[in-house]
Amino acid sequence: MDNKSTQYMDFANKLADASGDILRRWFTTNISTSQKADLSPVTEADREVEQKIRSMIEYTSPEHGIIGEEFGNIRPDSPYQWIIDPIDGTKSFIAGYPIFTTLISLFYNNKPLLGIIDQPILRERWAAITGEKTLFNGSPLPALATQKTLEEANIATTSLTYFTTEELLKFNKLKEKSATVIHGGDAYAYAMLANGKIDIVIDAGLKPYDFCALISIIEGVGGIISDWAGNPLTPASDGRVIACKNKLLHKEATRIISQI
Amino acid sequence: MDNKSTQYMDFANKLADASGDILRRWFTTNISTSQKADLSPVTEADREVEQKIRSMIEYTSPEHGIIGEEFGNIRPDSPYQWIIDPIDGTKSFIAGYPIFTTLISLFYNNKPLLGIIDQPILRERWAAITGEKTLFNGSPLPALATQKTLEEANIATTSLTYFTTEELLKFNKLKEKSATVIHGGDAYAYAMLANGKIDIVIDAGLKPYDFCALISIIEGVGGIISDWAGNPLTPASDGRVIACKNKLLHKEATRIISQI
Repeated sequence: MDNKSTQYMDFANKLADASGDILRRWFTTNISTSQKADLSPVTEADREVEQKIRSMIEYTSPEHGIIGEEFGNIRPDSPYQWIIDPIDGTKSFIAGYPIFTTLISLFYNNKPLLGIIDQPILRERWAAITGEKTLFNGSPLPALATQKTLEEANIATTSLTYFTTEELLKFNKLKEKSATVIHGGDAYAYAMLANGKIDIVIDAGLKPYDFCALISIIEGVGGIISDWAGNPLTPASDGRVIACKNKLLHKEATRIISQI
Repeated sequence: MDNKSTQYMDFANKLADASGDILRRWFTTNISTSQKADLSPVTEADREVEQKIRSMIEYTSPEHGIIGEEFGNIRPDSPYQWIIDPIDGTKSFIAGYPIFTTLISLFYNNKPLLGIIDQPILRERWAAITGEKTLFNGSPLPALATQKTLEEANIATTSLTYFTTEELLKFNKLKEKSATVIHGGDAYAYAMLANGKIDIVIDAGLKPYDFCALISIIEGVGGIISDWAGNPLTPASDGRVIACKNKLLHKEATRIISQI
C-alpha cells in the first residue's frame, strides 16, 4: 500500500506540474483582452487544465474514476477516485491575486490516499500521503503549534455568501470569540493553516473537489479537519468544513457551531 | 520640477527597498509563535517599517512633513508631505497571503508628485511620477484597454464592513450591473487594475495613507481615480474611492453611485 501510494503521489505531482504549466500561461496573459470569446478566459483555462489531467489519468490508470469540477464524474463505481479542481479560487485567478490553487486528490473506498494543493505562480506545493508528514515544496513541514486558544485565533473563511442564515449565525458566534477574521483565500487558506499562519478555516457550501485534497495535508501537520459536526470528511460530506490547528481549538470551535 | 521628481522617486524607491527588507523578514517568520509579546507581530512589523522610513526621511529631507498610519503627522504645514502605509492589508499579511503592500507617496501643495505600491514577497513594484507612465518593476506598463463596458466589468472591493448602509446600497446597484465582484485585496486590487486584470475598484472608509499612493499609478496607465462624486483625491478626501479602467466606465459607475 505504502509503495503504491508513493507511486500515485509521483503521478499526482506530474498532474500538478502539467496544471501549473497551463495556468502560468493563462495567468500571465492579460485575460480581460479576450472577453469576446464564447467562454470566459477563466473557464477556458479551467477546462484546459481539467482536460489535460483527465487525459493523463485515462492514459495511466484507465480503470480509475474521476470527479472534476468542469466535466463531471466518470466510472463512479471504481474504488479509486481522482478528485480534481483545476482552479480553486477562480475570482482570485481573474483578479490577478496569486492565491488560487489546483487541487488534486486520490480516494480509495471513500478514504483519502493523498492530496495536493498547488499554487503555480508562487511555485508553492503542499503534498501529503495520508498518514505521512505534509511536504511543502518537497520538505516536511513542522507539526503545528498546539497552545493556541480561540481568543488568540485568526480565522479565515472564503465567502459568507456560501452560508445559509443558520450557518451564518453559527459562524458569527465563533467569530465573536476569536481574534481576527479574514475573508477570501479558498484552499489557499487551508494551505496557510498547514504553514502555521492561520489557526481556523471554516467554510460552508463546498463541493467534494473543493475540500477532498485538503484532508491529508491538514492531518499531515497535526491539524484537525472535519465537517461542522466533527465527522471525518468524505466525498459525500455536506460541504460544511472546519480545519483547526489543534484538537483543543477544534473541540471548542465545533462545540460553538453545533449550538444555536 | 521634473528633475526634482526623479530625485524624489529615487529616494522613494530606497524607502520601498528598506520596507521590503523588513517585511520579508517578518513575513517568513511564523508570526503566530510570538503572540505573547505586548504588541501583535503585525503591529511590530508595521512600526518597524514606519520608523525606518521616517528616520530616512528625517535624515534626507528634515523639512518635509510625514503622515503615517502608526505614528501620526509631523510638520503638517510643510508643502511637501510624505504619506506612508507600512503594511496595507494587515489581514493578508497575518494570513500569509502575499497581496499586502507598502504604500508611499509624496504630495506637494496637496497634489501628488509620485506614488509607489510595493509587494515585497512577490517583488512587484508599481511606481509613478505624476504625469508620467507607471513603471512596473522598472518598465512602463501599457495603457489600459478602453473598450470595457460595465456589464463586462470585474469589480473589486476590499471589505463591505467599511461601508455605511447608504454606501452599501449604492455599491449593490453597481454590483448588479457588473459581471463579477471580488472581495479583499486592499491596494493590491488597484495594482491589478493598473495591470489590466481588474476593471473597477471601489472602496469606502479609506484613510489618506490607504489611497494617496494610488493616484499617480492609476493615472499613469490611463485609468481614472476619484472620490465617489468624481472629484480628484486629496489627503482631505472623504475616504470613498473609485478607480476605473477607462473614462466611460468611470462616468457610468459614478453616475450609478451618485443616485439613491
